[in-house]
Amino acid sequence: MNKVEQLQEIKQQYEALKARDLSLNLSRGMPSEEQLDLSNELLSMDVTPYINNGDFIDIRNYGYLRGIREAREFFAEMMDVRYEQVMVGSNSSLQMMAIILNYLVNHAESQWKQEETIKFICPVPGYDRHFNMLEHSGFEIIPVELTGEGPDMDEVERLVKEDSAIKGIFCVPKYSNPSGDVYSDDVVRRLAQMETADEHFVILWDNAYCVHHLTDEKIEIANIIQLAEKAGYPERPIAFTSTSKITHPGAGISAVAGSEKRMNDLAAEFSYQLIGFDKVNQMRQVLFLKDQENLEKLMEKHAEILRPKFKIILEALDKHFGGGQYEVEWNEPKGGYFVHLTTKDGTAKAIVDKMTELGIVLTPANAPYPVGHQQQDNSIRLAPSYASLEAVKVTIQALIVCIKLVYLSMES
Amino acid sequence: MNKVEQLQEIKQQYEALKARDLSLNLSRGMPSEEQLDLSNELLSMDVTPYINNGDFIDIRNYGYLRGIREAREFFAEMMDVRYEQVMVGSNSSLQMMAIILNYLVNHAESQWKQEETIKFICPVPGYDRHFNMLEHSGFEIIPVELTGEGPDMDEVERLVKEDSAIKGIFCVPKYSNPSGDVYSDDVVRRLAQMETADEHFVILWDNAYCVHHLTDEKIEIANIIQLAEKAGYPERPIAFTSTSKITHPGAGISAVAGSEKRMNDLAAEFSYQLIGFDKVNQMRQVLFLKDQENLEKLMEKHAEILRPKFKIILEALDKHFGGGQYEVEWNEPKGGYFVHLTTKDGTAKAIVDKMTELGIVLTPANAPYPVGHQQQDNSIRLAPSYASLEAVKVTIQALIVCIKLVYLSMES
Repeated sequence: MNKVEQLQEIKQQYEALKARDLSLNLSRGMPSEEQLDLSNELLSMDVTPYINNGDFIDIRNYGYLRGIREAREFFAEMMDVRYEQVMVGSNSSLQMMAIILNYLVNHAESQWKQEETIKFICPVPGYDRHFNMLEHSGFEIIPVELTGEGPDMDEVERLVKEDSAIKGIFCVPKYSNPSGDVYSDDVVRRLAQMETADEHFVILWDNAYCVHHLTDEKIEIANIIQLAEKAGYPERPIAFTSTSKITHPGAGISAVAGSEKRMNDLAAEFSYQLIGFDKVNQMRQVLFLKDQENLEKLMEKHAEILRPKFKIILEALDKHFGGGQYEVEWNEPKGGYFVHLTTKDGTAKAIVDKMTELGIVLTPANAPYPVGHQQQDNSIRLAPSYASLEAVKVTIQALIVCIKLVYLSMES
Repeated sequence: MNKVEQLQEIKQQYEALKARDLSLNLSRGMPSEEQLDLSNELLSMDVTPYINNGDFIDIRNYGYLRGIREAREFFAEMMDVRYEQVMVGSNSSLQMMAIILNYLVNHAESQWKQEETIKFICPVPGYDRHFNMLEHSGFEIIPVELTGEGPDMDEVERLVKEDSAIKGIFCVPKYSNPSGDVYSDDVVRRLAQMETADEHFVILWDNAYCVHHLTDEKIEIANIIQLAEKAGYPERPIAFTSTSKITHPGAGISAVAGSEKRMNDLAAEFSYQLIGFDKVNQMRQVLFLKDQENLEKLMEKHAEILRPKFKIILEALDKHFGGGQYEVEWNEPKGGYFVHLTTKDGTAKAIVDKMTELGIVLTPANAPYPVGHQQQDNSIRLAPSYASLEAVKVTIQALIVCIKLVYLSMES
């Protein structure tokens, strides 16, 4: 077949898909109903016998801003930090980050406000909600490319050493959204010990996918909090995780960890805005999750549901683009919620538009790059978790058609 | 008995109390265990049949930042506003206030940041957490005296008309903490329609005690949101309430209400920090509370538990200080959680210290006045809700002894 015939055929395939009047959505990293069902015990659990916790506090009443002992112990083990280094927060770790970022800008590091420009490094491709939060807080984003095992550290080290306006870096260190990057031990060590022009430089360590393995490798990353402490920068990292993609996203709990001094400061800051987070739900979550071993079993069940969806996507991509004649690159994630495609420059938007025309909603093209920084228009994020197997199958078939259609149309 | 003999007798009573080695706490407005038990159904409720709500959304998953329909409808009725004017928030209305205050200062009213000083009016005596929040956000507090039916409106109108640095007023309009003030219709109307030098003047309307009646009067106050809309200042009031002192303080839900424009702006602001609040708990609370009629019955049960505690305090105060020879004033609250005593100038701290020596913790003296503004040292707040009847009895006896001791010691 020559190019014209190929284009003709692809156009027919596209029209056939269009005729199916599809309505699919792979835009956000939401667990599926089947995954949510794994934690339905939470919906009818009887917490009554536990209203007085191990410290004899009444979990129904006010107080205990840092969370109940049981929940703090659970997260301390999960995040590999000491009990004193953890607080348990609201249902949204993103909200904890936003409040802490606001605290850093407006209270903790008051000299930050004196700067004409404040900047933050974001490894890219990255998470759009991080970008939005930073820009909303007045930061200029400095994107640094991910290499497959974390950000390009030569570039990060060069930037933070020379520019005191750079106040921090926002990392998803494990199964990064959306590239699937897992930060290598060397990258974590360098982040922990690098010299920074601003002495209050922070690492916001959004470990959202810390137990979200897709393979049996179950990768563990280096402990940024311990490494930073050893390197003499104990206040540098602030780590976050949550039960959002473990139990129920809308109704879980989050945790924050850092040095003891940092946690004391944060507790003082939070005390200006609330008396305590939802302790009954903390108890409920911990009673359900029990311990790390049980957590691992639950995550294995999530993986069983998710794996086939990723398999369909990766096999289809490999089949159609593996030969290399189409100039499409993608990652094979070992955990997390996303597959990220790098298409030919200048095509991502057109491809996603074509998908929208078919009734298939993807994450907006190039969302993994902060606005104004992605000149290449080549980034597409797939979030297959929420959709059914059949929907994933149709979506990836359609995506392959749309990519070919846009590529061939450009050439013709 | 002459003064010396009286002092001698009071000293003996004080020593007798001291010998009892008491350990009591009436410092914070927390519901008692008995009150918390009224809502224990929440601890074992089965929400499973309701995971898909009336709008067919899965309450376990991400999203629906403004809350589920069922909860918004409940609060719309409770706060007497339209559905579109309500969002349902975290377990802490105080946190919603803090986030919104931060939004007003740093985002919504960007010109506020240009001012050398920003000021906020606080009716006094008032709630220390409001003061702390405002001061932490950079505001200077302008105290205005409460009259028994709300703040001195002549003073408020004069201040806001002439000083554009005054950006708002923080009100607890019903059964005010700690004075028990209920804002009269006239006060609410004047707040809604008064002329302000700053066009973005806001009223933070913390209606924490809106259904917390102690008498059969069950007072209703005027609707600030409707009145402000009529007066041409629809964005002025932002109203808050929560289930904290209705169900379980640590594990309830809160609500925010305002004009539709304001609510749209707030939803946009909140979207920078989270994807949604805990919708499973929203469903749980609404299933338990059912409707306004059922809510009223529950609040009646709370009142039955609280009333005897207030009665003990008020009768004892009346018996010992009703004659007027001791110069002690107090309110007789018709709702809420507090009794506020105004003692002789320069005595409150000494009295509370004497109580502490007996092993009885009260709210710090003068806490109802912002630091630096209470020169009189005459304010004592009693929070009898958490303590047992016996503890309340002992506490008020002790307080009477301590007041007499301090007064007589001053005179001798």
